[in-house]
Amino acid sequence: MIEMEKLVSLAKRRGFIFPGSDIYGGLANSWDYGPLGSELKKNIKDAWWKRFVTSRDDMVGIDAALIMNPKVWEASGHLAHFTDPLTECTGCHSRFRADQIDLNAACPTCGRKGTFTELAQFNMMLKTFLGAKEDAAAVVYFRPETAQAMFADFKQVQETSRKRVPFGIAQVGKAFRNEITPGNFIFRTREFEQMEVEYFVKESEWEKHFESWLSEMKAWLDFCGVDPKHLNFHEIEDGERAHYSKRTVDIEYQYPFGLKELYGLAYRGDYDLKCHQEKSGVDLRYTDPETNEKYLPHVIEPSLGVDRTLLVVMLEAYHEEQARTAEEGETDLRVVMRFPKALAPFKIAMLPLSKKDELSVPARALAAKLRQRWTTDYDETQSIGKRYRRQDEIGTPYCVTYDFDTLNDQSVTVRDRDTMQQERVKIEALEAYLAAKLGF
Amino acid sequence: MIEMEKLVSLAKRRGFIFPGSDIYGGLANSWDYGPLGSELKKNIKDAWWKRFVTSRDDMVGIDAALIMNPKVWEASGHLAHFTDPLTECTGCHSRFRADQIDLNAACPTCGRKGTFTELAQFNMMLKTFLGAKEDAAAVVYFRPETAQAMFADFKQVQETSRKRVPFGIAQVGKAFRNEITPGNFIFRTREFEQMEVEYFVKESEWEKHFESWLSEMKAWLDFCGVDPKHLNFHEIEDGERAHYSKRTVDIEYQYPFGLKELYGLAYRGDYDLKCHQEKSGVDLRYTDPETNEKYLPHVIEPSLGVDRTLLVVMLEAYHEEQARTAEEGETDLRVVMRFPKALAPFKIAMLPLSKKDELSVPARALAAKLRQRWTTDYDETQSIGKRYRRQDEIGTPYCVTYDFDTLNDQSVTVRDRDTMQQERVKIEALEAYLAAKLGF
Repeated sequence: MIEMEKLVSLAKRRGFIFPGSDIYGGLANSWDYGPLGSELKKNIKDAWWKRFVTSRDDMVGIDAALIMNPKVWEASGHLAHFTDPLTECTGCHSRFRADQIDLNAACPTCGRKGTFTELAQFNMMLKTFLGAKEDAAAVVYFRPETAQAMFADFKQVQETSRKRVPFGIAQVGKAFRNEITPGNFIFRTREFEQMEVEYFVKESEWEKHFESWLSEMKAWLDFCGVDPKHLNFHEIEDGERAHYSKRTVDIEYQYPFGLKELYGLAYRGDYDLKCHQEKSGVDLRYTDPETNEKYLPHVIEPSLGVDRTLLVVMLEAYHEEQARTAEEGETDLRVVMRFPKALAPFKIAMLPLSKKDELSVPARALAAKLRQRWTTDYDETQSIGKRYRRQDEIGTPYCVTYDFDTLNDQSVTVRDRDTMQQERVKIEALEAYLAAKLGF
Repeated sequence: MIEMEKLVSLAKRRGFIFPGSDIYGGLANSWDYGPLGSELKKNIKDAWWKRFVTSRDDMVGIDAALIMNPKVWEASGHLAHFTDPLTECTGCHSRFRADQIDLNAACPTCGRKGTFTELAQFNMMLKTFLGAKEDAAAVVYFRPETAQAMFADFKQVQETSRKRVPFGIAQVGKAFRNEITPGNFIFRTREFEQMEVEYFVKESEWEKHFESWLSEMKAWLDFCGVDPKHLNFHEIEDGERAHYSKRTVDIEYQYPFGLKELYGLAYRGDYDLKCHQEKSGVDLRYTDPETNEKYLPHVIEPSLGVDRTLLVVMLEAYHEEQARTAEEGETDLRVVMRFPKALAPFKIAMLPLSKKDELSVPARALAAKLRQRWTTDYDETQSIGKRYRRQDEIGTPYCVTYDFDTLNDQSVTVRDRDTMQQERVKIEALEAYLAAKLGF
């Protein structure tokens, strides 16, 4: 496993991920996705959406507002319970998470002893004010999870889509948590993105669907190129789970900074729909069209973080190896991001052997044609060996070299990122060749 | 032009757009995109991204944090100037936008006269607090536009992507404005999504690039199915433009509620980069690799709202017409959403003529196959005529009918949304037939 420093450095140097607001000294562990990172992130979200929404008949998507009526958070329990225990030093007024500090020790900021206050519960939702006044009536919250929108909109979605149980509602979008101690690069940030499903089932069938979603999550992780040996499926024990859950599995990953949570899969019973039905007074029961039975469906919730997925995809893709160079008999250290091809930011790089118009004009034209179908980089600076290494480092599966022979034989050299094997391919057959290799 | 009520009703009834937090009585003109709306919105964003980012060599994308360092908004002028003039009634403490109320009239809330205070400037950015304390040092703002991230990240993006001027940085994402009077469905909301480009050019070439982007925006609107007769290209006159802009065009659309802004195209000079360079102290100049000249590029900014695009796409797609029914010689009122095929939420609907296993089993299997490639609905309830109308109303380009003859001749009937013509197609030729029709 690589050190985080190497990954953070590559991410910044090659335009995957920059510190947010960097020219102003950053902002509290916030991060911006650059050209390659935004493409990688979009590829992850699009692949997830296609796999779990549009290619299935039992799933629909929604895209709900980030700011919801505060009653949603009252019903869900977030207003009362989504809190961290906090203590304040009465000497210097610094605040700390009580579970991360020794309350008998000296204050880490001012060094005084015995100055910590009683614990207070600190709500982790980001609040703001809507409308012209900043008073209590104007307070609203940015959602701390995407899930509640699927419950609040359950009835409208079910009725308009006419889906029958079992079916699921999916959403990809931002969520916000005022973490007292964010950190570890994009692992824990105050602003992050989730991909969540609420899958509605008959109570009697929950175990079957739970198993099925566990398999789906394993298949997704396999698609993302994650080595199963780096994963731990942690069954949460009785007494540790939320009171409404009969089974919860934390999917943990062996990060360079330790074994920590990646995804979660929870059986939530009918807890959420019941809370919203009680609080809103709206009948949220589903009517079985065959038996006319009315009931609140039970819920299986696969919950995935987009940013953590991207982090793990990058960690798994990163490889360093001694590899031969373009020069006969030489080797050097090659850094290669072995991204799954479907996720790679650039699928193809077009590399003319010379900057001269003779080659660069037709090479650019060919790149422009390929770019209509696949993301295609174009690079004509420095030696071909250096350019191969640059593309390896950003995980481009295929480099296409346009050389002086191309002018005669109308063929190009295609080089495979992983095997470094090269093949001579006729230009007229190039699209079909790449389509077969890339699988789309 | 249809009335807004009809569109809002269709949007809610068919699962395009619901009032946000509806079971709790909504929240201040916020809206959730349902199954069909979220798909339509995603199709719009994906088409824009492909057209303006991945299929061009002179564009890169970013995906920046929604919460940026407050110094960004100080440098950009938003902290000081992004305000609405506000007045308060001293009788009942209601607040109003001063430019939307007669200050000599009675208060619309309490009826008292002469109670309005002097004007105050009300900042429209949504603020929140990061960290454990709600004090001035913890105040941060949710971005009121996506644009500033492209300026703040300009240098890192240019250096890591090694793009040469002219080139552009694009972003799609949420922005927030605390509008005192939001309204007109999704036209003006406090939370909305933008698709923006900052295109960096040499000062001497700004006019050429401005014209080019104006053409691009027209071509995009054509792609979206917008009738040019409903558009107005409003050249902002001298004295009306921002002081740094030598040319600004508001692209206005004839909504049912009047001629109002849809998109904007502005030449912003080097104003933004200059402000950030001064405020941050970081040298943001670009070095021309051929002449070694250092300069701040000038900027052309095409600015598009996602939600407004979706609103206009729906308004343009909506058609009512007398059309023949499935029954011989009869006509009825047909509502049809003539979406551009690339934007339609479902591309295909599979309609077995009977619910019997004999037809529904193979029809479901065929739908499942098509769904791997195109979004495909499946509907087996009620008469075929009613099902056609349901698909017309959500704009599905092709209905595939699986009937009893299919079992013998291995052919299905494909019906075109716009012409209502039907064609018999062999199942083995169906994918190629649809690919040719759909163009992808």
